[in-house]
Amino acid sequence: MGPCLSETELISRFFNFDIPNHWPSQGIGDDCAIMQVGASRIAVTTDTLACGTHFLPDVNPYTVGRKSLAVNLSDLAAAGARPRCFFLALSLPETNLEWLEAFSRGLFEMAREYDCPLIGGDTTKTAKVGNLQAPFSLTITAMGEVKKGLTRAGAKVGDDIWVSGTPGDAYLALMLRTGEWSGVCSEHAARAMDNPTPRVALGQFLEGRASACADISDGFLKDLGNILSRSNVGARINVDALAASDDLNSRPLEQKRMAQLAGGDDYELVWTAPVCMRAEISAYAKQCPALCFSRVGEVTPSGLMLFDDKGREVKNIYHGFDHFSQ
Amino acid sequence: MGPCLSETELISRFFNFDIPNHWPSQGIGDDCAIMQVGASRIAVTTDTLACGTHFLPDVNPYTVGRKSLAVNLSDLAAAGARPRCFFLALSLPETNLEWLEAFSRGLFEMAREYDCPLIGGDTTKTAKVGNLQAPFSLTITAMGEVKKGLTRAGAKVGDDIWVSGTPGDAYLALMLRTGEWSGVCSEHAARAMDNPTPRVALGQFLEGRASACADISDGFLKDLGNILSRSNVGARINVDALAASDDLNSRPLEQKRMAQLAGGDDYELVWTAPVCMRAEISAYAKQCPALCFSRVGEVTPSGLMLFDDKGREVKNIYHGFDHFSQ
Repeated sequence: MGPCLSETELISRFFNFDIPNHWPSQGIGDDCAIMQVGASRIAVTTDTLACGTHFLPDVNPYTVGRKSLAVNLSDLAAAGARPRCFFLALSLPETNLEWLEAFSRGLFEMAREYDCPLIGGDTTKTAKVGNLQAPFSLTITAMGEVKKGLTRAGAKVGDDIWVSGTPGDAYLALMLRTGEWSGVCSEHAARAMDNPTPRVALGQFLEGRASACADISDGFLKDLGNILSRSNVGARINVDALAASDDLNSRPLEQKRMAQLAGGDDYELVWTAPVCMRAEISAYAKQCPALCFSRVGEVTPSGLMLFDDKGREVKNIYHGFDHFSQ
Repeated sequence: MGPCLSETELISRFFNFDIPNHWPSQGIGDDCAIMQVGASRIAVTTDTLACGTHFLPDVNPYTVGRKSLAVNLSDLAAAGARPRCFFLALSLPETNLEWLEAFSRGLFEMAREYDCPLIGGDTTKTAKVGNLQAPFSLTITAMGEVKKGLTRAGAKVGDDIWVSGTPGDAYLALMLRTGEWSGVCSEHAARAMDNPTPRVALGQFLEGRASACADISDGFLKDLGNILSRSNVGARINVDALAASDDLNSRPLEQKRMAQLAGGDDYELVWTAPVCMRAEISAYAKQCPALCFSRVGEVTPSGLMLFDDKGREVKNIYHGFDHFSQ
């Protein structure tokens, strides 16, 4: 393993090119790039998912199809975009028709649910490693349309901090399935890991209302941290204000907090919004009975402070997911 | 290895979804998707390149950087597009700073030469295969702007068939480097394989003049075949009319023809154009002294017939590259 360089450091050191842009954009560092193309503003995201890194080796190909598109739609949601189309680059060890049929079914279902057609792509064979063929991996590039678009920059001191759903359930499922934690994986936790719902409608509602937004695919505190550093502000968070599933509430407190705060692989949204938006957001929440919204803290001038319901400080030992820092 | 299914069959069987498109496009089957976004028309392409499949294991990372973007720019060229930006999804076995530095330098040089900024991306770790880490792979999605755009559909009976450059040189380099053919790899052939020039200016010139266009990344006859089937026409080709490099001319005829007709990994363009365009195309060719243009045949109602300078039929035993049919 090479030197310990975070993904963010790696990007800013090696991929921060200074080349004039005919399609003005906000630069690297958000869930999506947002570009002005003529009179239209488009949001674009690209994500690689690989067997062994993002999926357990025995994953069902139907799950791979649904989830691969879902995580890209989640990035579009974080930008407030309406999904428009996607591209698929698929690398397979072999032409397995049964695998392809189930993968394609899952992918197509998700594409149809969100009106997001497949427009192009590329299929290749994976590399040989020793005598074995590397397992599947795929990259999806998804594109959407925004009015103005949401980024991670824009949080203002005094803004509320909100989160959708019950973060931590996907991480709980992973810990249970890999045997790191003992117990049986519930249907609810399995669904959070296998079949996440991208918050596309919520993202569109937040456009024009939230001051900054991200999905929490790398873990709540890490993705909130990206908002804070891009916006040059800090935050005070009541960790007990985060909604938790019954599954997580039944775990030891330490496990619950680790899953909620650092878990990753959740496709909920975290956003900041001015206090004057509280009523409107709460009214919207009432229209979504299947989805809870938590108001978990406020934006401060600097630093990140965690505390609990009793006002006691909670030490921040929760670090989200980074491919190259492990 | 699974059943023998070509890439085209695989795509039409598993990835031909019927979902309404808010951004009208021409459907799957060209080098680029061309979409109408508001008043703008954009071309988008995505290509995966992997160590062991597209690059020899000992490839220089600087070469990987240049060539990865070049092959995507070549797809934009085939659509007649002006490059606008690209996205990079990079999978690495480890954080190797020396590798990253050289890769980034090659990528950035190519990006600057073609005014094509990097706007977003994703970095991940490759999968573990047995005890080994899979080698690098990367997917680039490149975007450009077209007036109307060129596709593979549109060739008309009686049109001329043209090719740029001297196809076959990259294949010659591969055969020599892997020891399949004996001899020393010249600098010219090495450059064709390592540092191809995407024909971006030529593609823009051809927009509005050519009736169909493709790059010949999968081999001249295979990519011409894609034009013919998408346009529902045939062709008569004089194989001796294809310009050949001195390197290829010094090889046995069988090797020369294999490289020229089926080689692949060339990033020249093949296009069809009405006879009335001959003068204009020849005049443009005179402005590009470093690049030769060959007029190699004509579009016919059906079939593909190869013949030589003496009018003798040449048997078509030349099949281009397909990842899943080998």
